[in-house]
Amino acid sequence: MSYTAPLAEMRFVLEEVGGLGDSVPADLVEAILAEAGRFAQSVLAPLNEPADRAGSRLENGVVRTPAGFREAYARYVAGGWNGLTLAPEHGGQGLPLALATPLVEMWNSACMSWALCPLLTTGAAQLLQSHGSDEQKRVYLDKLVSGAWTGTMNLTEPQAGSDLGAVRMRAIPAGDHYRLSGQKIFITYGDHDLAENIVHLVLARIPGAPAGSRGLSLFLVPKFLPDAQGRPGPRNAVRTLRLEEKLGIHASPTCALVYEEAIGWRVGDAHRGLPIMFTMMNLARLNVGVQGLAIAERAWQRARAFARTRVQGRPLGAEAEGLPILHHPDVRRMLLEMRAGVAALRALAYYAAALLDRGQGDLEGAAQRRAELLIPVVKAWCSDMGVRIASTGIQVHGGIGYIEESGAAQHWRDARIAPIYEGTNGIQAHDLVARKLARDDGAAVRALIAEMRATADAAAAAPAPDIAATGRALAAAIAALDAASGYLLRTDPAAAAAGSAPYLSLLGTVAGGWLLARLALAAERRMEADTTDRDFFATQRAIGRFYAGRMLARAPGYLAAVTDARAVLDFPLEHL
Amino acid sequence: MSYTAPLAEMRFVLEEVGGLGDSVPADLVEAILAEAGRFAQSVLAPLNEPADRAGSRLENGVVRTPAGFREAYARYVAGGWNGLTLAPEHGGQGLPLALATPLVEMWNSACMSWALCPLLTTGAAQLLQSHGSDEQKRVYLDKLVSGAWTGTMNLTEPQAGSDLGAVRMRAIPAGDHYRLSGQKIFITYGDHDLAENIVHLVLARIPGAPAGSRGLSLFLVPKFLPDAQGRPGPRNAVRTLRLEEKLGIHASPTCALVYEEAIGWRVGDAHRGLPIMFTMMNLARLNVGVQGLAIAERAWQRARAFARTRVQGRPLGAEAEGLPILHHPDVRRMLLEMRAGVAALRALAYYAAALLDRGQGDLEGAAQRRAELLIPVVKAWCSDMGVRIASTGIQVHGGIGYIEESGAAQHWRDARIAPIYEGTNGIQAHDLVARKLARDDGAAVRALIAEMRATADAAAAAPAPDIAATGRALAAAIAALDAASGYLLRTDPAAAAAGSAPYLSLLGTVAGGWLLARLALAAERRMEADTTDRDFFATQRAIGRFYAGRMLARAPGYLAAVTDARAVLDFPLEHL
Repeated sequence: MSYTAPLAEMRFVLEEVGGLGDSVPADLVEAILAEAGRFAQSVLAPLNEPADRAGSRLENGVVRTPAGFREAYARYVAGGWNGLTLAPEHGGQGLPLALATPLVEMWNSACMSWALCPLLTTGAAQLLQSHGSDEQKRVYLDKLVSGAWTGTMNLTEPQAGSDLGAVRMRAIPAGDHYRLSGQKIFITYGDHDLAENIVHLVLARIPGAPAGSRGLSLFLVPKFLPDAQGRPGPRNAVRTLRLEEKLGIHASPTCALVYEEAIGWRVGDAHRGLPIMFTMMNLARLNVGVQGLAIAERAWQRARAFARTRVQGRPLGAEAEGLPILHHPDVRRMLLEMRAGVAALRALAYYAAALLDRGQGDLEGAAQRRAELLIPVVKAWCSDMGVRIASTGIQVHGGIGYIEESGAAQHWRDARIAPIYEGTNGIQAHDLVARKLARDDGAAVRALIAEMRATADAAAAAPAPDIAATGRALAAAIAALDAASGYLLRTDPAAAAAGSAPYLSLLGTVAGGWLLARLALAAERRMEADTTDRDFFATQRAIGRFYAGRMLARAPGYLAAVTDARAVLDFPLEHL
Repeated sequence: MSYTAPLAEMRFVLEEVGGLGDSVPADLVEAILAEAGRFAQSVLAPLNEPADRAGSRLENGVVRTPAGFREAYARYVAGGWNGLTLAPEHGGQGLPLALATPLVEMWNSACMSWALCPLLTTGAAQLLQSHGSDEQKRVYLDKLVSGAWTGTMNLTEPQAGSDLGAVRMRAIPAGDHYRLSGQKIFITYGDHDLAENIVHLVLARIPGAPAGSRGLSLFLVPKFLPDAQGRPGPRNAVRTLRLEEKLGIHASPTCALVYEEAIGWRVGDAHRGLPIMFTMMNLARLNVGVQGLAIAERAWQRARAFARTRVQGRPLGAEAEGLPILHHPDVRRMLLEMRAGVAALRALAYYAAALLDRGQGDLEGAAQRRAELLIPVVKAWCSDMGVRIASTGIQVHGGIGYIEESGAAQHWRDARIAPIYEGTNGIQAHDLVARKLARDDGAAVRALIAEMRATADAAAAAPAPDIAATGRALAAAIAALDAASGYLLRTDPAAAAAGSAPYLSLLGTVAGGWLLARLALAAERRMEADTTDRDFFATQRAIGRFYAGRMLARAPGYLAAVTDARAVLDFPLEHL
């Protein structure tokens, strides 16, 4: 099935909660989105299904990506897409993250397995931009910004997953460089044939380093060692041991890499590897949340297309034969759950990206604080919802959805990685409750709640009954969020941890509903001013109304789960 | 990972809500469960992962099942397992369905792809037992009861999925038999190498039959035509066009079959095919719900085993290093959600099986009415929960869960078929609301609610605080169920249809909580009488408590979704 970039929705969300303001001229935004949409639709989207079937392959120690990936990547680099948010002095375009976020969405809707490579490359470039030495920037940064070379993140080892403090990879000093030895696993695009070189960013331990996470340093290890002119020279001692056989994202090579005294250079100070790596974390986690959104959007488009053409039974109350299943109330229910879910995910992800843009100038400011509060929510809630929405997409197809040929199953398989990588969703919930909520004694969440309440009040006071109903539902859900936040701030750490996952779901659900209420109010305002797009704006309002009635009603259930920590903690471990 | 049949849980549920009563001696129940457990653990469970990798293959028109399937099936037949609930005069053992249900659970926990073949065979035998002619019974029934031959259900065609009225397969009279022509799809075990013959039960249309579902007749079409001695003779004109490439249950061959003037015999009266097929529906739908339970149990066992051995990070408040992740509060939360979910599914499925046993003697009686009310709930809620619990199982594994080798991913893929086949869960919700709820104007659900309330009252009055809390949570959830039932009975059919899916989830959630409350009360009673198994009974109580605090709290959310039908129906279709 083809993919159509939802440009109108994207622009609407960017304008109303994406906070681009005047930083980018509206016609440039429109031109970039349109051009990116064409690239995603015509170049990337057709790759998705055949690449899933073919997978990436390890042949004689070399990773081969599926047919079409190389050509698509070359066009992506030639089009200058990689450096959109990166520094102009290194060839980037310095545009806001909020504008790049819809593009990340499009690449991942079109072909998530492919999109992972540029996603990691952008992250590696950001990291070097902030922490690399001048020499490292000179040799590597322009190549990563353009995408001529790609980047990887080497964190996980068999015994060190969520707990990076257990990393064992050694880095022995050897003159101006280091020699790295050990094994890394789950390295996305750890090897491939898309680019002429690969820059690995590797967590390792220098001799004499403290134990645990405070003894890790970060190293840059290229696949090919650049010569004096910066051209890829001899092969470094990093080899691919195997590709993992995964549930999904089959075309994305997930490598186990062996380092055998590989040559590398330290990035930043010794023992500061984890803090440096974690400066990229907000961006990486935002992008994983966007992947959840992206798969949900594609799954929704596919399910809608199926429901508009598949004829099966006579819908309740229909006079005519031959109506498609879209007319069955329960199929509509499923499609609306998908559509409203996608709308909430998009609003939340773009909003968080805008906060990161605003926060950049002031790392202690309110925007940055709120961004850091919401980033774990974007990562975990959007990725969980992505799986759920893709599952509903299968269900809309009936038996055909269980057949791989339908394409619906692939979205579900692909989506399932997002709740796991870049910090499991359990880790996100811990980050939210133990750090982001607690560090300012709830000030950030209270400020957010106050702003949500103002929206709820405005909506409840609206003359339009649907918006007023949205406002009332939002107010009730905010009350649950407020109570849950207060409980977590008062209780002990173990109880807070036991309630962290439902709290994250609650915050995501309410934040999504809040932003949809803002969009509904904006849509009402714009319907009055702009009569040409009335249908579009009316639809946005109806989405907000549906979400309020269905999703926000889950809030009391989440609150109960948050505050029922004793049922988790008191359960006898030996009988679990 | 190995599988251990949860015999103690099974017996406890059978005794307390499975209603075996005195119909089967307790020592026979125990012996059958233990022997079945050994078979499932030692013969079937080791097949599950290699068979998933190998899949069934179509080679030169013949379907080959994975290594070990034939041997396991031969042992299953030799062990007399197939005829457990079937008529003694045809070689069965005439035991209650409630006793067979834990066995169906075990086969499916151990290897769902394999278990589908006997599941369908038992259904085909039941159908012939009730509706076959004497001659059909003589030739086919003993073979199906023993499992020497296997059975299939041929319903679906490309244009006829949920809507069987669209079936086109033709059956032309030819003397004492018919000639069938057409194509059937999604035929589970439509061909295989496990048995010497296959008996297809096929919906088709006789010339001059009325259009729609009232013009379908049922036919028996053997793969090999039996000779006068009942031995398989010449090949009938049924061939396998292809095997579907599916998301899961890879080892179960899903066939597209072509009938080219194949010889068949009518079962029952002309044009009565659908009602005859539907007499098997309760059993088939119960069993699909049991599959959801079965996969959830296996996923839970695997996640628990992983969480007990995987060491990662230092759990909150722990003094010691090296504790497994089971000690992390959020991992415990996940494991408890899985375990409590499994307990509720088992209680509901066994309870429904017992109702079907009791209802057999009186098809208009209260037990049968309640069974028919609950069967769509068992099918849909247990299968939905099975997918959810298997997903949590992946999450407990972290990154390892996304690797197929872990086995966690297979459970999730396998589980995903159950919400689809044997009537999609949307069809189940429609059956529940439009038929089972409405046909007696809510009498069956009101009787159930009254009984639930008595349990809630008894629990709320219990001196033990955990049981009293369970009772209060149950009472609140029952109130939501009552309100939702009343709303659906009052509203128009389209609104009822729009609210049917959340209503089914609500009824499943509350019924599961009700049965767990009954089990908690029983556990308390038995703790006093039997001090040897105190830990076991205390654990059952704690499970009930956890479920009440977490799952029953979702009831208000479901109620809101049920009663918010207008948000579905009013959404402009052209903008969906």
